[in-house]
Amino acid sequence: MEIKTNLDHITVVLQRPKFAGNIGSVARAMKNMGVSKLIVSEAGPFPDEAMKMMSTHFAADIIDDIRYCENLSEALADFQYIVGATARLGSVRGPVISPRDMAERLVDISQNNRIALLFGSEDKGLSNDDLRYCHGLITIPVSEALRSLNLSHAVMVVCYEIFVAGITKKTAFAPKLASSAEIEGMYGQVKEVLTDVGFLNPQNPEYFMTHLRRLFSRTHLFARDVKIIRGICRQVAWAIQNKPHQGK
Amino acid sequence: MEIKTNLDHITVVLQRPKFAGNIGSVARAMKNMGVSKLIVSEAGPFPDEAMKMMSTHFAADIIDDIRYCENLSEALADFQYIVGATARLGSVRGPVISPRDMAERLVDISQNNRIALLFGSEDKGLSNDDLRYCHGLITIPVSEALRSLNLSHAVMVVCYEIFVAGITKKTAFAPKLASSAEIEGMYGQVKEVLTDVGFLNPQNPEYFMTHLRRLFSRTHLFARDVKIIRGICRQVAWAIQNKPHQGK
Repeated sequence: MEIKTNLDHITVVLQRPKFAGNIGSVARAMKNMGVSKLIVSEAGPFPDEAMKMMSTHFAADIIDDIRYCENLSEALADFQYIVGATARLGSVRGPVISPRDMAERLVDISQNNRIALLFGSEDKGLSNDDLRYCHGLITIPVSEALRSLNLSHAVMVVCYEIFVAGITKKTAFAPKLASSAEIEGMYGQVKEVLTDVGFLNPQNPEYFMTHLRRLFSRTHLFARDVKIIRGICRQVAWAIQNKPHQGK
Repeated sequence: MEIKTNLDHITVVLQRPKFAGNIGSVARAMKNMGVSKLIVSEAGPFPDEAMKMMSTHFAADIIDDIRYCENLSEALADFQYIVGATARLGSVRGPVISPRDMAERLVDISQNNRIALLFGSEDKGLSNDDLRYCHGLITIPVSEALRSLNLSHAVMVVCYEIFVAGITKKTAFAPKLASSAEIEGMYGQVKEVLTDVGFLNPQNPEYFMTHLRRLFSRTHLFARDVKIIRGICRQVAWAIQNKPHQGK
């Protein structure tokens, strides 16, 4: 069976998971779908034995190789494309697509980029702060009878869609995207210069920054885009310092 | 959300399940996907409490309504269409299709027929004897790394496919896009201010402008995005004119 998605480029990131058993079940679901890298952020370490009871020995290698990170910024630094799974709908979070449509996109993106699939805690999901890192959001379609999914069930559905898309879809070329670290550096500079020109309120810079993040995360920023945007920021900062006033 | 499949006509039948916790997890997955009837055959009864720990109280009604049957013949007697989930491949079992293709079929079949989704035990799956009852067989696509699925994960994938096939309308949020006139107005202003700060070469402003256009056209700009970008331009222009030089 040929799988077109580069599954080695896909990592599941669990933000603040609560139960070792769920992490084990997640590992098993991943293994079924050919995904093998697991990061646990802002939680744990969890007892191996409790996780392996649910992962079964077949997926114990995923448990052995779990990478624990202190915060999400560290966990996501190396990824060029970050997908957040959210149950909540609403325009405030921007456009959300289905796991199936996302899986189609990831076939191409996975060729040259490292992808993180980000899932929140069992009770609270992902916060708005967590979602700021995401380039794309997905919501698993569920019945109104019960919207809250078990964590491993959610991971299963998303990994299953990715696996199935890799069996069925034809590939196209996708250029290299900017990494999360490059993008965060850019936002830092944008924030600084927009505060300097008085566009951002220093008391509440995040209001417009969140909107700009959403705008740019809807597209896929290439490394070159980030360089151009940073060049603009540098030039604006220079102009404010050095350009002679033309008076009023 | 309109669901074309008649989910009231769908029942999950577990043949010889071993663990109460798995049955609870199955109930939760079913509830998420709008399926509410559960039959347990040739096993149990299982302690309610152990099942409800995994079903959560949200799906406790499915646990309360479990029908126990002594054998598969009794369990399946009332159904007009029986789908068996099998991990094993091989011509001996006849043609097997994907859960997705089956889910498509079930949209129509469910209108006037009662459908059973039959799953075997955690360790052995369905026997050839069990499969004799089936009108159709499905195999969930899995990685060669680990073929054996957790029971509730298998039920989740099958019910998820049925639910998705039944959705007619996409619920994705689609806000109003900016008009071409709004976008061109924005580019005019961007060009002016980027020339003013010295980012664009007045002899050849189109070089970077083309790149910026490409960046923004990869996303879909909403009316609100355009307003924010124009606000930034205005503020940069103001800052150049009016901000006191901080000197060098």
